[in-house]
Amino acid sequence: LFEKDKKFSSCAFGFYDMSTIVVLGAGRSSAALIDYLLAHADAGDWRICVADLQPDLARERIHAHPRAEACLLDMNNESMARELIGRSDVVISLLPPHWHTQVARYCLDLKKHLITASYVSDEMRLLHADALNNNLLFLNECGLDPGIDHMSAMEVISRLTTSGGRIISFESFTGGLIAPSTDPGNPWRYKFTWNPRNVVMAGQGTARYLELGQLKFIPYSQLFRRITRVHVPGIGELEGYANRDSLMYREIYGLHDVNTLLRGTLRYPHFCSAWHVLVQLGVCDDTYEVSCGDLTHAGFVELFLPAGNRPVEERLCRWMGLDPDGYEMERLRWSGFFSAEPVGLERATPARITEHILNKRWALHTEDRDMIVMWHRFRYVRGQQMFELQSSLVVEGRDAAHTAMATTVGLPLGIATRLLLEGRIVQRGVAVPVAEEIYRPVLEELKQYGIIFREEEVML
Amino acid sequence: LFEKDKKFSSCAFGFYDMSTIVVLGAGRSSAALIDYLLAHADAGDWRICVADLQPDLARERIHAHPRAEACLLDMNNESMARELIGRSDVVISLLPPHWHTQVARYCLDLKKHLITASYVSDEMRLLHADALNNNLLFLNECGLDPGIDHMSAMEVISRLTTSGGRIISFESFTGGLIAPSTDPGNPWRYKFTWNPRNVVMAGQGTARYLELGQLKFIPYSQLFRRITRVHVPGIGELEGYANRDSLMYREIYGLHDVNTLLRGTLRYPHFCSAWHVLVQLGVCDDTYEVSCGDLTHAGFVELFLPAGNRPVEERLCRWMGLDPDGYEMERLRWSGFFSAEPVGLERATPARITEHILNKRWALHTEDRDMIVMWHRFRYVRGQQMFELQSSLVVEGRDAAHTAMATTVGLPLGIATRLLLEGRIVQRGVAVPVAEEIYRPVLEELKQYGIIFREEEVML
Repeated sequence: LFEKDKKFSSCAFGFYDMSTIVVLGAGRSSAALIDYLLAHADAGDWRICVADLQPDLARERIHAHPRAEACLLDMNNESMARELIGRSDVVISLLPPHWHTQVARYCLDLKKHLITASYVSDEMRLLHADALNNNLLFLNECGLDPGIDHMSAMEVISRLTTSGGRIISFESFTGGLIAPSTDPGNPWRYKFTWNPRNVVMAGQGTARYLELGQLKFIPYSQLFRRITRVHVPGIGELEGYANRDSLMYREIYGLHDVNTLLRGTLRYPHFCSAWHVLVQLGVCDDTYEVSCGDLTHAGFVELFLPAGNRPVEERLCRWMGLDPDGYEMERLRWSGFFSAEPVGLERATPARITEHILNKRWALHTEDRDMIVMWHRFRYVRGQQMFELQSSLVVEGRDAAHTAMATTVGLPLGIATRLLLEGRIVQRGVAVPVAEEIYRPVLEELKQYGIIFREEEVML
Repeated sequence: LFEKDKKFSSCAFGFYDMSTIVVLGAGRSSAALIDYLLAHADAGDWRICVADLQPDLARERIHAHPRAEACLLDMNNESMARELIGRSDVVISLLPPHWHTQVARYCLDLKKHLITASYVSDEMRLLHADALNNNLLFLNECGLDPGIDHMSAMEVISRLTTSGGRIISFESFTGGLIAPSTDPGNPWRYKFTWNPRNVVMAGQGTARYLELGQLKFIPYSQLFRRITRVHVPGIGELEGYANRDSLMYREIYGLHDVNTLLRGTLRYPHFCSAWHVLVQLGVCDDTYEVSCGDLTHAGFVELFLPAGNRPVEERLCRWMGLDPDGYEMERLRWSGFFSAEPVGLERATPARITEHILNKRWALHTEDRDMIVMWHRFRYVRGQQMFELQSSLVVEGRDAAHTAMATTVGLPLGIATRLLLEGRIVQRGVAVPVAEEIYRPVLEELKQYGIIFREEEVML
């Protein structure tokens, strides 16, 4: 009756009295989530169906678990998608974000809950009333960033506010880095632990935030030189650059009194100033293509420099006013930007070529361990006194298959799914996890997995 | 029969044996063109119909000339546009460029020639075969830049090539500046003599050109610091920044041997480094809006700077590493960027606000004289010797109503129209003025108006 091996053509559970969780997408970030679901399947009497365009990938994720099934999912095939979603009680979508609205529409039609780790899009937001009217929860931003950042921030905000504090400043940074033990010769202290393309394109557009009561804009060309220095206990100095729009969090977190509100991305020191050189050069541009032919790495950089007789490396230093032995050049040199190695692409945008060059050194190896760092800084007034509370989280991955990134994205999704199926979340509509009924039990359970925030507080 | 005052409702010429020229658009750039047409109307037995959405503006342009008529033109009214074009022998379109393809389609239907001063769009290019098959000329890029630049370059290229020269490098820059006598306290030596919005948005995107055999890209954030220094006889030092795509001119000019090909825009010294500060700040961004309220000029700059206690002016210097008494700050200060004057807009993009602030000092006054400078540099080999030929043009305007800009855009259009009606242009299809039958007589006649290139040649 429970046909686990029905050629992956579709999910075909026989029992409908138990709860069925459908996971859409079995990519890199799905392992920890699926492991969590499998581990709780017996206790919850769950069936788990993992669907992917590559059913073999889905099959690999479920480890032949008797309560799980791997299915083919082609989102372009509407009847296939509808059938799959129709069999679920709750859908967890790990698909690329542009699919989420479509999935949500099917969920509305078929009266299913939906959980994602992606930002609420404008289209998703429009479905709020419909979801509410159908008694459905469409919970988004329930991974790491966005996800754990919301939950941990709200927990502190609630605690400070309840005890009479008035929060006047909130800064929050998260970064996916590599563990200190990994790749010791890599001066960037960074590898691609997430979508490499998003890393290369990061920050394009204009960032906006609030600083000392003033609205501030940062154009892309200044983003990586306008950093916030951060000290994280146990890690040391890091630096953060601003994310696109920090202002919306005033509403989401109910921080109506803050005069400073800034969210951003963490990197190790000197990452940003070296990346700033790439931005200034123009190599992160994705708007036009270049024919590569036998273009070398150095030849690629040459495209963006005034012509001259001296080596590319020397001319870059002069043009950008860089110290040849400085932090920036050390990093660019290590990444091979001045080498005679062929790029090895036919025709691509500068952003794609840059990603390709970086990936030669930044691809995660099997034994590599990534590391997630999250850091919040609250300033608040209680009575006549101002306080500063810093809260930080450091999570190291086990290896390239069990990254901290996948764990911290997957566990909140899994826990929220369990809470929902257990009837412990009453909120409905399009939501993010800022309600106490969600963030408190999720944060509590995350502690069992070593996902524990550390706090330090001082009077100012 | 020739009803000049028929309430501007449409052109209504009675005689169809004479030639009728329809001018679409009676804006700022039309005066010199219309004056030229009126001056030659008797000799050519022409009727001239000037059409605009504001027929009063059109009426003003024709000075009650007995062979001219002013008409209403609403391009959104297809039958009105068709009727007008239907009465013509040749149409000159001075409309905003996005209208040209529509005009060209009517011209195809109605079998009329078309002349414009605008760049050939991709849509226009697609009409080439149709125009050819209908024995029609759709001549574009026949103003100043593009226009006189093409013609003067081709004249030199043809002369050098005919005498056995092989051109290996071509650089060409044009600028709409102000005359030395105008606004002596203005350190930019610049005012808005053309569409202000285009000036503020100039260079967004990526410029590409050829330098010493190598393809080169310049991102927007580097464009205004990557200048070419130019010496123009009678004017002195100027500087040029690259235009968007110089490479296409290899084909257009038949310059298959060049290893350097660069076209750009001329400005007075230190304009570019000061403008570079605005680009770095992000104030030319047109992708989002800011609520102005009682925002001052200094408050606008403040939006783009890290918060601090010192005055905006001082913090800008420190942030950008500028000398408070240097060229850049002198220009920004003169433009009022640090003043407490209210911006005076409700809600606008940074680019619109910047345009608005600049326009307070850069709007052309009645007595102001603009100045056009065009400069070409050819390097070529003849025998075993390399030569460099520089060719330059300087044209001063009479006043704000008779700008050098309008004259140098309008005269080539007028002369080309006359040549066409006299049967002296045999070329058909979508074209730009690089054929000898066009550029030679146009350049020759332009000399009568003081539009004369000056050449200097040296052996290298």
